[in-house]
Amino acid sequence: MLLQETLKKIKPRDKSIEKACAERVDLLIKPKGSLGKLEDIVIKLAGIQGKMHPRVDKKAVIVCAGDHKIIEEGVATSKKDITKIQAINMTRGLTGVCALSKQCGAEVVVVDVGIDDEMPQAVINKKVKYGAENFSKGPAMTKEEAIKAIEAGISVAQEKINTGVNLLATGEMGIGNTTPSSAIVSVVGGFDPSEVTGVGANLPQDKVKHKADVIRKGIEVNKPNPNDALDILAKVGGLEIGGMAGVMIAGAANQVPVVVDGFICTAAALIAIGIEPKVKEYLFASHSSLELGAAKATELLGLNTCLDMNMRLGEGTGAVLMFNVIESATYMNDVMITFEEAGFIVD
Amino acid sequence: MLLQETLKKIKPRDKSIEKACAERVDLLIKPKGSLGKLEDIVIKLAGIQGKMHPRVDKKAVIVCAGDHKIIEEGVATSKKDITKIQAINMTRGLTGVCALSKQCGAEVVVVDVGIDDEMPQAVINKKVKYGAENFSKGPAMTKEEAIKAIEAGISVAQEKINTGVNLLATGEMGIGNTTPSSAIVSVVGGFDPSEVTGVGANLPQDKVKHKADVIRKGIEVNKPNPNDALDILAKVGGLEIGGMAGVMIAGAANQVPVVVDGFICTAAALIAIGIEPKVKEYLFASHSSLELGAAKATELLGLNTCLDMNMRLGEGTGAVLMFNVIESATYMNDVMITFEEAGFIVD
Repeated sequence: MLLQETLKKIKPRDKSIEKACAERVDLLIKPKGSLGKLEDIVIKLAGIQGKMHPRVDKKAVIVCAGDHKIIEEGVATSKKDITKIQAINMTRGLTGVCALSKQCGAEVVVVDVGIDDEMPQAVINKKVKYGAENFSKGPAMTKEEAIKAIEAGISVAQEKINTGVNLLATGEMGIGNTTPSSAIVSVVGGFDPSEVTGVGANLPQDKVKHKADVIRKGIEVNKPNPNDALDILAKVGGLEIGGMAGVMIAGAANQVPVVVDGFICTAAALIAIGIEPKVKEYLFASHSSLELGAAKATELLGLNTCLDMNMRLGEGTGAVLMFNVIESATYMNDVMITFEEAGFIVD
Repeated sequence: MLLQETLKKIKPRDKSIEKACAERVDLLIKPKGSLGKLEDIVIKLAGIQGKMHPRVDKKAVIVCAGDHKIIEEGVATSKKDITKIQAINMTRGLTGVCALSKQCGAEVVVVDVGIDDEMPQAVINKKVKYGAENFSKGPAMTKEEAIKAIEAGISVAQEKINTGVNLLATGEMGIGNTTPSSAIVSVVGGFDPSEVTGVGANLPQDKVKHKADVIRKGIEVNKPNPNDALDILAKVGGLEIGGMAGVMIAGAANQVPVVVDGFICTAAALIAIGIEPKVKEYLFASHSSLELGAAKATELLGLNTCLDMNMRLGEGTGAVLMFNVIESATYMNDVMITFEEAGFIVD
């Protein structure tokens, strides 16, 4: 119900405002086109918000957390408890995404979509179940659970948007979650898992082949339909991945831009645009993650990154670093004057 | 005198503090190395400032402006007056670098090192001469003038550092200044000018070959010594390029990091490190400019860029956008806790 209603609200960007904004950007006192992606960003924001001077001054990163029973298969080195501990550390402002959010004035919102333990109140409780099932043996979740996970993200994002948030990012915390992400990218892009499976959180290189084998087996066991994003999410996805897809869908439905972090978020974005292709019009990529498969995933998504930081932490760190770039684009649009306003003409 | 005294003050970075900082960064609650270049940045800052918790909370971009009589040869489309007009617009907060500086709270300092006209008081007067000479016919300036240009940058930077500025960037304004920049990169890197000559401020593609021919002629006429940076600056450089080299030298002498903008600033950096190689230890690259030759120049400089924005405006815009990235690295270092502080151990 919530998912269907939210999807119905998604409209394409306002292309007439975009055109008007682009024309004005061309008149600003600089060589035409010389601010590159900053120009593209503000034009897209204008279309998203339907305003010549879009605002992105109230920022929040929604970090969705969940566990993955597939780590039983030896696809991750970190212990499962790290998901819980880091989610708590995040509510205390102590992790990577908290540090970068503090720098740019963004709020960090931590949501339990599927942590395999009880959590303190500071973590928003939207738990669908206690961890995604081991998808090398059967589906990660039911279709109903997949919808619930998406709706968890929608409802948290909607609440933040209702308080005036006008720029969102997605982040994640979930030991083992590069495994379902590689599975999603494999299925959507038609890749063999070995092409898009990397070290995640420092898995030794000699175990990466095993990780890809587990993913390959999971895809064979579940046979997700490459043309049915909800089926892919349910069979080889993760609860927090569903939650992030929900945040993106809610952003699109409310004309709020959503910044996609690295590999795992990009997998979530592929789910979101598989459900409703127009969601893509509201997404911004951020950084080129070092995780193997990230470049292919971003290419599938069809968005450009701006930051080349050799980062692969997750949590939304790359997306939050991108907040400043996006805000800078609005400053360009608001502060710079046109040649005519400056009283001189240059071609 | 000022140049020699400033050069004497330059020491290598504090490698023991860097090592200690790197060890602590490895203990922060994240997979080792997963914050990539942010980690590299803060470790380098620690070595520059000699502190485990370096600060970059007072930022300024020093924009050096100068004219170039070589535009007589048809190497630029913009009129010479734009240098003067944009320098004035900059003091009024209206140009690209002003917009991006406002977003990140940086001060914009505009310095006339060689504008071919009288300037209002808001532009700091360090004029060495009324424009660099047409270097296709003879040297751009005398060696004494080159030193004066560098000292102009040193004195302005020193003044800002004395007020507590702890993060500097260089920017430039000068119609025609991609031409001497390409000349410098050609001479330093041993490239044919055609390999490193681009469109600058939207020179039509069919005139780029002519621009490279003019540069080739300038190098043949002046025969700069590739191993004498001051000789290169004087013969085929520019006054504002000398000024920026001076800002970098002053930064290094005062343990203040300096962010290098795109192609023209990178040419200035090649001059600065040609004069004193240790200056490089204090420099940060910023973005991969679209200007042809920028990638080769950055490679010659031997620094990594973080931003891939398709920008080519100059003024210091890319460097100022990098301020946020550098500041974020310090937030990572200050806000994140170690595994031990968090009370759990992960390898």
